[in-house]
Amino acid sequence: MSKMDNIVSLCKRRGFIFPGSDVYGGFAGTWDFGPLGVMLKKNLTDLWWNFWVEKRDDMFGVDAAILMNPRTWVASGHTATFADPLVECKACHGRFRADKIADGISESVTTEEFKALNVKCPTCGKTDWGPIRKFNMMFETHVGAVLPEDANGTKEEQELSKRSVAYLRPETAQGIFTNYKNVVDTLYPDLPFGLAQQGKAFRNEISPRDFILRDRECSQMEIEYFINPKDWESEFEKLLKETHYFLEEKIGLNASDLEDLEVAPADRAHYSKRTIDVMFNYPNGEEELMGIAYRTDFDLKNIERESGKSMEYRDKVTNESFVPHVIEPSIGVERLILAILSTAYVEEPVEGKDETRTVLKLPESLAPYKFCVSPLLKNKPELVEKAREVYDLLKEKYTFVTWDDSGNIGKRYRKQDEIGTPKCVVVDFDSLEDGTVTVRDRDTTAQIRLKPEEL
Amino acid sequence: MSKMDNIVSLCKRRGFIFPGSDVYGGFAGTWDFGPLGVMLKKNLTDLWWNFWVEKRDDMFGVDAAILMNPRTWVASGHTATFADPLVECKACHGRFRADKIADGISESVTTEEFKALNVKCPTCGKTDWGPIRKFNMMFETHVGAVLPEDANGTKEEQELSKRSVAYLRPETAQGIFTNYKNVVDTLYPDLPFGLAQQGKAFRNEISPRDFILRDRECSQMEIEYFINPKDWESEFEKLLKETHYFLEEKIGLNASDLEDLEVAPADRAHYSKRTIDVMFNYPNGEEELMGIAYRTDFDLKNIERESGKSMEYRDKVTNESFVPHVIEPSIGVERLILAILSTAYVEEPVEGKDETRTVLKLPESLAPYKFCVSPLLKNKPELVEKAREVYDLLKEKYTFVTWDDSGNIGKRYRKQDEIGTPKCVVVDFDSLEDGTVTVRDRDTTAQIRLKPEEL
Repeated sequence: MSKMDNIVSLCKRRGFIFPGSDVYGGFAGTWDFGPLGVMLKKNLTDLWWNFWVEKRDDMFGVDAAILMNPRTWVASGHTATFADPLVECKACHGRFRADKIADGISESVTTEEFKALNVKCPTCGKTDWGPIRKFNMMFETHVGAVLPEDANGTKEEQELSKRSVAYLRPETAQGIFTNYKNVVDTLYPDLPFGLAQQGKAFRNEISPRDFILRDRECSQMEIEYFINPKDWESEFEKLLKETHYFLEEKIGLNASDLEDLEVAPADRAHYSKRTIDVMFNYPNGEEELMGIAYRTDFDLKNIERESGKSMEYRDKVTNESFVPHVIEPSIGVERLILAILSTAYVEEPVEGKDETRTVLKLPESLAPYKFCVSPLLKNKPELVEKAREVYDLLKEKYTFVTWDDSGNIGKRYRKQDEIGTPKCVVVDFDSLEDGTVTVRDRDTTAQIRLKPEEL
Repeated sequence: MSKMDNIVSLCKRRGFIFPGSDVYGGFAGTWDFGPLGVMLKKNLTDLWWNFWVEKRDDMFGVDAAILMNPRTWVASGHTATFADPLVECKACHGRFRADKIADGISESVTTEEFKALNVKCPTCGKTDWGPIRKFNMMFETHVGAVLPEDANGTKEEQELSKRSVAYLRPETAQGIFTNYKNVVDTLYPDLPFGLAQQGKAFRNEISPRDFILRDRECSQMEIEYFINPKDWESEFEKLLKETHYFLEEKIGLNASDLEDLEVAPADRAHYSKRTIDVMFNYPNGEEELMGIAYRTDFDLKNIERESGKSMEYRDKVTNESFVPHVIEPSIGVERLILAILSTAYVEEPVEGKDETRTVLKLPESLAPYKFCVSPLLKNKPELVEKAREVYDLLKEKYTFVTWDDSGNIGKRYRKQDEIGTPKCVVVDFDSLEDGTVTVRDRDTTAQIRLKPEEL
């Protein structure tokens, strides 16, 4: 099995991540977090929030609804351009992204260009293609009392139906921009300041793949950092530096797995003056982990045009008025979790034995449980009772403590290694004598004896 | 203005809650949390999670995707029955919930029954009604590479399109039930155990109203507590008691605003053997705050039937096998926030002055900021410098500290009262002499002098 397969398997086996709607055979592009995954995810999102928002004086949170006024997506350009080139094989009705099944063509490939390439259908091998159609990746729905029958209704009813169209947001960013004015009007923050949001975003990927890397529903953590345009270069550098500090020091990714890809002008969004894709060395190859984009005043100007409202900010000191520019560090939670799991996942030989063990060497701050407490033997009430005391003591102090009295001690260590528990605490017969417990370290497997209060 | 209007106004004015997509004139039934609202919401959801999940040994978290396999909603009955009776005025095309515009009729009212009542249209006053139609409140969307043109496509294409229908989940509960089997198979928890989830749910309300009380997108906190059916009565009582402890002791709601409404057999869901609606005395009248329902084995049995997989649990001690029964405490975050705001919101006379002040008397655990630090005067660098020192000290220790040097001190107190900051710390000229600061209490307005380290 590949490393990716091993990670997917561990995630399911240990209750980190299950395929979405697994009991019904799944639902492509969706994933459910199990008990361990929820803990890991919450540790991660809380750490991010604390680092980027709570600890700083220049960042504030917002939490916008997923369903937004559709004018949002007209203004942002998503209605017009958030689309993939879709092509259908006339022989087998398979549907594909044209730019993914042929080499060297771009997203703007035309039907003629594509047909000229004589690409074989990946499913049936034929070359009988329909036209390239632009497939918008936003999920569409209808809001309000509009009934399906309306499609057959009067012209007026059909118009009404059209007006009620809404989309599942394809990014959290626009939920920040649409709140910019209300935040400025209520909090009067000094520039530069950032607005941060964590929340779900949805993309109707034609071919979801690579576990949680390319899914249809994901969680994003985005910051829009509003600046005076004259400062953009230094502010960009600062955010880039803080990003690396977060990824390497707080989350424990290896610098050697990260690469800052300076996106070339031709590949950048037309409004962006600088974009860096932070790439990560995933098990299946290098992929984008997150992006930092200097978006200029593109978004706020779009909102000005669409809403007719001024997005100008008046500097309290200089009294100068202008539309702030924006730098956007944006990250997908699932991609980050996969990077963390890839980094933490290790198979290594067990010293002195002809075995290998699987360990998740997660940073302590991210590990679901900090301690596991066990009685050496389950059928000795005096050991169980003493272990319960130790458990209660640690649970009171650290909350994230688990109890395990299943199987034998070796099996328990193997399980705790796989879920990334840094310390296993075992109560044995010596504990009853001298009050000490065995503390076994996940990464070194070294064991020491301590009093529980010393933990 | 009514109390509700005052709360809505404060929420917007102080950055707690804005109308969704406000910059585009809003989007009915959606609300966005601003910086203060995000802090309040996170304090609340973290408190709930800590109380119900982290501190307990019998609760585990799950976090399922919002988009689920549509068979979920066939099994649960939502596709067939999650519908309101919708009626349209033929004269003005206004659409209404029949059971909301006529007295004494139920959701199952027929067209004939409704027409016989001669109800006047709330908009135009006419009595020219179309038929009652069942309006399913689930938001529908399409997943995968299905194009809008498919509606005009071949029969095969239309079939494909039908198969790709998905819904925005109308409740988080089913995301728990569908994960039950995977959790049991990976964690082997002892019965009774609970699975908890926080997340978004969507209901296409015909008439969203009452601020965040009846919205189209809400956050839920739900627990499915799996039990041996023989214990249901005592487990129900335990969860009810813990619920009240949480609402009254942890969140600070007044017992006098809460009422346990024992839902009568005829009004309960057919499968439920006992349901309590916990009602809250909202500013606009009593409404359901949350529910606790004994759902028997209804949901797991539905999943068994739809998936063909066994949901049986084997008791580790007795070796007995059975489908667990379920008790579900379910709460909407926004409803709870409105209850908290209603409880905290007070207008009271200022002692010795001919004024009133508005105060949010939030429990300290929920207040967005615990401290506000100010220099008495903004234009005295020595005061500002000393105040910054105090700010840094408190921020290091408590994180949730805000700085305010705007306007005069009276204005700052008024603002901090309105956002619920328990303590205002002011650095004045005496501070430079003896190192003490003024600490003003939000609720009593009493002021004492302390050294910053004593806070």
